[in-house]
Amino acid sequence: MIDKKRGRLTLPSEANFYDETIEMLERLGADAIRDSDGTYLPEDIKDIEGVDIYTNFFPSRGHNDFAETVPFERSRYFLISDFITATEDTTEISFLKGYYPEQIIADYDYEPKDWWEVYDRTLGEVVSRDDWEVDKEKNIVSVKTIPYHVYTVNFLAYGIWDPVQMYNHITNDWGDEVAHHIPFDVRYEKSSKFVEENLENWLKENPKTDVVRFTTFFYQFSLIFNEDAKEKYVDWFGYSNSVSPEAILEFEKEYGYRLTSEDFIDQGFYNSNYRIPSKRYLDYIDFQQKYVSSKAKRLVDLVHKYNKKAIMFLGDHWIGTEPYGKYFKNIGLDGVVGSVGDGATLRIISDIDVPMTEGRFLPYFFPDEFYEGNDPSIEAKDNWVKARRALLRSPLDRIGYGGYLSLAYKFPKFIDYITKVADEFREIHDISSKATAYKSCKVAILNSWGKIRTWGAYVVAHGKWFKLGYSYSGMMEALSGMDMEVTFINFDDVKAGIDDDIDVIINAGDAYTAFSGGDSFLDPEVLTNLRKFVYEGGGFIGIGDPTAYQHQGRFFQLADVMGVDVEKGFSQGYDRYFTKEIEDHFITKDLEDYVYGEERPNVYATSDKTQILKYANNEVQMAANEYGKGRSFYAMGLAYSLENTRLLKRAIHYVAHKEDDLEKYFAKDVRLEVAAYPDLSKYCVINNSTDDVKSIVYDGKGNSHEVEIEAGDLIWFEE
Amino acid sequence: MIDKKRGRLTLPSEANFYDETIEMLERLGADAIRDSDGTYLPEDIKDIEGVDIYTNFFPSRGHNDFAETVPFERSRYFLISDFITATEDTTEISFLKGYYPEQIIADYDYEPKDWWEVYDRTLGEVVSRDDWEVDKEKNIVSVKTIPYHVYTVNFLAYGIWDPVQMYNHITNDWGDEVAHHIPFDVRYEKSSKFVEENLENWLKENPKTDVVRFTTFFYQFSLIFNEDAKEKYVDWFGYSNSVSPEAILEFEKEYGYRLTSEDFIDQGFYNSNYRIPSKRYLDYIDFQQKYVSSKAKRLVDLVHKYNKKAIMFLGDHWIGTEPYGKYFKNIGLDGVVGSVGDGATLRIISDIDVPMTEGRFLPYFFPDEFYEGNDPSIEAKDNWVKARRALLRSPLDRIGYGGYLSLAYKFPKFIDYITKVADEFREIHDISSKATAYKSCKVAILNSWGKIRTWGAYVVAHGKWFKLGYSYSGMMEALSGMDMEVTFINFDDVKAGIDDDIDVIINAGDAYTAFSGGDSFLDPEVLTNLRKFVYEGGGFIGIGDPTAYQHQGRFFQLADVMGVDVEKGFSQGYDRYFTKEIEDHFITKDLEDYVYGEERPNVYATSDKTQILKYANNEVQMAANEYGKGRSFYAMGLAYSLENTRLLKRAIHYVAHKEDDLEKYFAKDVRLEVAAYPDLSKYCVINNSTDDVKSIVYDGKGNSHEVEIEAGDLIWFEE
Repeated sequence: MIDKKRGRLTLPSEANFYDETIEMLERLGADAIRDSDGTYLPEDIKDIEGVDIYTNFFPSRGHNDFAETVPFERSRYFLISDFITATEDTTEISFLKGYYPEQIIADYDYEPKDWWEVYDRTLGEVVSRDDWEVDKEKNIVSVKTIPYHVYTVNFLAYGIWDPVQMYNHITNDWGDEVAHHIPFDVRYEKSSKFVEENLENWLKENPKTDVVRFTTFFYQFSLIFNEDAKEKYVDWFGYSNSVSPEAILEFEKEYGYRLTSEDFIDQGFYNSNYRIPSKRYLDYIDFQQKYVSSKAKRLVDLVHKYNKKAIMFLGDHWIGTEPYGKYFKNIGLDGVVGSVGDGATLRIISDIDVPMTEGRFLPYFFPDEFYEGNDPSIEAKDNWVKARRALLRSPLDRIGYGGYLSLAYKFPKFIDYITKVADEFREIHDISSKATAYKSCKVAILNSWGKIRTWGAYVVAHGKWFKLGYSYSGMMEALSGMDMEVTFINFDDVKAGIDDDIDVIINAGDAYTAFSGGDSFLDPEVLTNLRKFVYEGGGFIGIGDPTAYQHQGRFFQLADVMGVDVEKGFSQGYDRYFTKEIEDHFITKDLEDYVYGEERPNVYATSDKTQILKYANNEVQMAANEYGKGRSFYAMGLAYSLENTRLLKRAIHYVAHKEDDLEKYFAKDVRLEVAAYPDLSKYCVINNSTDDVKSIVYDGKGNSHEVEIEAGDLIWFEE
Repeated sequence: MIDKKRGRLTLPSEANFYDETIEMLERLGADAIRDSDGTYLPEDIKDIEGVDIYTNFFPSRGHNDFAETVPFERSRYFLISDFITATEDTTEISFLKGYYPEQIIADYDYEPKDWWEVYDRTLGEVVSRDDWEVDKEKNIVSVKTIPYHVYTVNFLAYGIWDPVQMYNHITNDWGDEVAHHIPFDVRYEKSSKFVEENLENWLKENPKTDVVRFTTFFYQFSLIFNEDAKEKYVDWFGYSNSVSPEAILEFEKEYGYRLTSEDFIDQGFYNSNYRIPSKRYLDYIDFQQKYVSSKAKRLVDLVHKYNKKAIMFLGDHWIGTEPYGKYFKNIGLDGVVGSVGDGATLRIISDIDVPMTEGRFLPYFFPDEFYEGNDPSIEAKDNWVKARRALLRSPLDRIGYGGYLSLAYKFPKFIDYITKVADEFREIHDISSKATAYKSCKVAILNSWGKIRTWGAYVVAHGKWFKLGYSYSGMMEALSGMDMEVTFINFDDVKAGIDDDIDVIINAGDAYTAFSGGDSFLDPEVLTNLRKFVYEGGGFIGIGDPTAYQHQGRFFQLADVMGVDVEKGFSQGYDRYFTKEIEDHFITKDLEDYVYGEERPNVYATSDKTQILKYANNEVQMAANEYGKGRSFYAMGLAYSLENTRLLKRAIHYVAHKEDDLEKYFAKDVRLEVAAYPDLSKYCVINNSTDDVKSIVYDGKGNSHEVEIEAGDLIWFEE
């Protein structure tokens, strides 16, 4: 029997591993056991007393007996063909070229003329339906074309293989033995009925399950493979596999207008997270979230009826459940579990308003890390140190691991390390669950999505590095573990009036993307409200191409606020005399090398009042500015590093006029951070580096003392 | 007496330097003497036999006795105030702030309400004339404002000090002794009359002058100073000092519509060379060129009446005379003289269709180069080697130097070097004047200006380096001395049909500038004509942001032609598998390090057919592509270097399908080039480097032999 007081830890297990499982449960103080993709829990393990049994449940895949009876109800996409340049009066477009035939086939059940569109991309116009024909045998669309115009076909497709199972299947080379999971769409009648009946049967058949882990509900994020069975397109937020004529007809009834294929295709950009969402697309998201949450609620209610708990995995078929959306709460979930790659991905989970949040830590117990000669504790340490910063500001309720326990078992050094992690986590939880962590300022991140994509900004594929993202997501990562209250707002929020309690607004992103904001900066109300906010004393931080839109002589529309603008070529005739760096500035005091990430070139100071903090390569790379009673800070980029984290913290204090609060719960050395719980008179110092560090540390009253702390360690202090 | 057969060289002279002048004329074989700004030619020198006397003449400045009588006819500008953010309901704008009061004053003679405009730059709208008032005492415009909107004042100003004299005056610290030249505008009646009468008087008074050098005619290019008497704004092509209400009223009569201040202000960009010209601005250029050429013709006719020759200096008050414009020829000039900074600036002069072209070489005989311990022959060599390449393809008729001959006289090594230059120039001229240089391909540079700005692309201030220009002007510099016929075309030319004899079209520039082309790439006719040209066998070269306009899923509108496009953030979800460089390609055969200049990031190959020539920093930096029967080449940038010159030559041959012609009149070593005159069975090898080089050289039949050539040298061969 496990000491439940320890708890808060989920471990995977598997067949033929009973004794070792007991040993591991005791050693790590785990209180829950889960299955994984590719493993199952045998009865003996399910019978272990005092532990909860988590069981995976797939509502809309993995039931081929049913799925094969309803081919018409398989999942669908709107997809775009290659861009084809016509050279004749007629052009044949093999629209399936580039797609994986095991995953994608044309949907000819719905009349193509009613649902597909052919686009002349040169004109940006739909080609008349009379001017194209589909050859359903050859999967070719034949179009009457204007030579040297470019054409694409928007077509409706069946997704006939569940993308996640497909990924696992191909990656692990499961071969012909394992059937392809056919995904089906609960928008259609039989599937809708099936998922509920099937769940109820399953609940009856699985009495030992304590917690049902939905993985997930109905619609997979966009994950499309190419002809070589390799990933072609991925979007963790993508709604493109939630599409169906049924949904579109339903949408029309509710919203009064008909969505077209192009509303989803979006010139081939598929409304990615970086695209400024159209009103139509936002309507569709709203529509799907309403539907998914109400349907998911029915499944959760069934789970509760059988006295089990229902949690969902944040990933896979999570489309429509966005936890910061308006309807998530209605689902009635007991918890959310998700993968933790770093601080920002931890915050995606830990900030959700739900009774229980659980983070699954890295590495997974898979052979790619757990092979002879490798030390998986290295990745585990990196993961824990990044996650811990964030945990201290916004706690998870539980942590866990996934994969093959039998593999991890062979790496005792790793087991030692995660034992320490589990203990440290529980210690943090004990404190952080009793009080709120100290916050020095309230920061709002402004982009086109706002609240709905809280901590999801800059994400393409969850947890992966992207060249046009890392210079900005570094800012998010820095904030995820900083003593700041962080909120996400969009341009409607700015127009509705900026909340009084916001100290600093951050706008960070490449020009014309959803994270900078594009044409929102043509809206006078957005501009005047932001200017007023700063002029009256607020702080503004711009990173990359903040407030960028080439208009009326300016590229940065808030050039007046930031004291910098960008030379785009047109105004090279103006002499730029303001190039002198300020040598000693509050913001850059702890900075040695400024590692911005990707260059955003040709920024210049608009006047001699601009405080240039970094000038190199004939451009301003960092600047501060006074604007009325307010202040701003501009930085070219903010790739994640401990130095940049400090830079950002200093910048926030500076623009918020809270310089005097910097040395409260603060460590001089940039490798250390302090997290405090003033109501409990406790604070801890964490070492985020792989060095042993000695540093002056300040408590909440500004009293300093010296602390010695080992690499990666955490030390608690009483005030 | 000078041996006129030598000739083709103009030297400056000055007072009290008679004997040395004679010595220098003989030594260098000069046949003309000129004055300079700050020197005059005494009578004894004007009497030297066998040399022409060049005398400077300023039509519209330097006549203060007259100018002071017509203050209303002083030169004018439309200028923009600073961008001012309103914070109240009324905002006072000190519109002259940032201007140099000795140069710029408000013009209150014309009613401000009729000619000025106040702009709300947040809305992009003109503020009603009822909502602002001018305080003429304080030079303030008081505007009824919407708080947190940004405002500017477009005001009409007098330019009361000639910008070139002002520059020389301030730079050389001439102090109060030398009066400020007041510029006057020949659009106005008294000035119009004065310039002709004054010239005629002057011609009568200067019988010894053989050649009148107009410096120049009526309108100075844009050159505006700031409050610190330093350059604030410069545009060598800028028409902003050619503006007047008189001209606008005349324009209205001719073109049927009224230009506004904003047509000139252009959001503060003043229609710079990098701006895509509006139809209204092109109309204005046409209007001014017509006027200037007809008025200049009257002056030239007067010069001819007195049996002198009339040449103009290409610079200073040259606005309206653009030599590649429609009306230049009408002026009837005998020649053009201009400053030669490198090959491209030489070609600006040498390609002009006029009886005589003369290039003024560097360095000027001024103390900034000619001081003890410095070796001015270093700059002279660099200048000559760059210019010589271009001369060999498009000859000048004469060369010359400026400044103080007495200064240069003290540097015998320098005099030796320019003696060699003069001899080498005459030798080249002897040959190149008798036959046409061999050209391997015809290349058309496509931008929004086309022919009118032949060799003027990318120029801001003549001969100066600009951060957003050098990656492209390197291509121009390379071409200026390459065995290519070079022509300049605009988008109307493309629409009218691309000439059959063009082998290769080059489009090079930053997105949305006049040199890339911006919204011209939304014009289906432009796109289809370019595609057809390449598809049917033509060559296309794109540099930087060619054909760039974010539209319908593409950033490069000719992504299909080039096989590359740019990731702007929206489509990061697409996997980019095509990253493998081709190791051995015709284009990159002689390239070791690719020095592109400024990075244009995030280019990717659109298919596996794209030939990637350089992949670094997760992006395609150089690529080739097949398109129908045609080919393309993409490069991120092409800063000037000998290696890049070879790269460009190879790329042109490749896309023109003329690889077999590469090794004709060709040197293996990139430091050497070959210029040939097949009609004379002569060719020469030039060494463009500071190294002695031994290389295989090919004649026109492809026969090879080894050549040894000293640093910077030229060797002639017979075929």
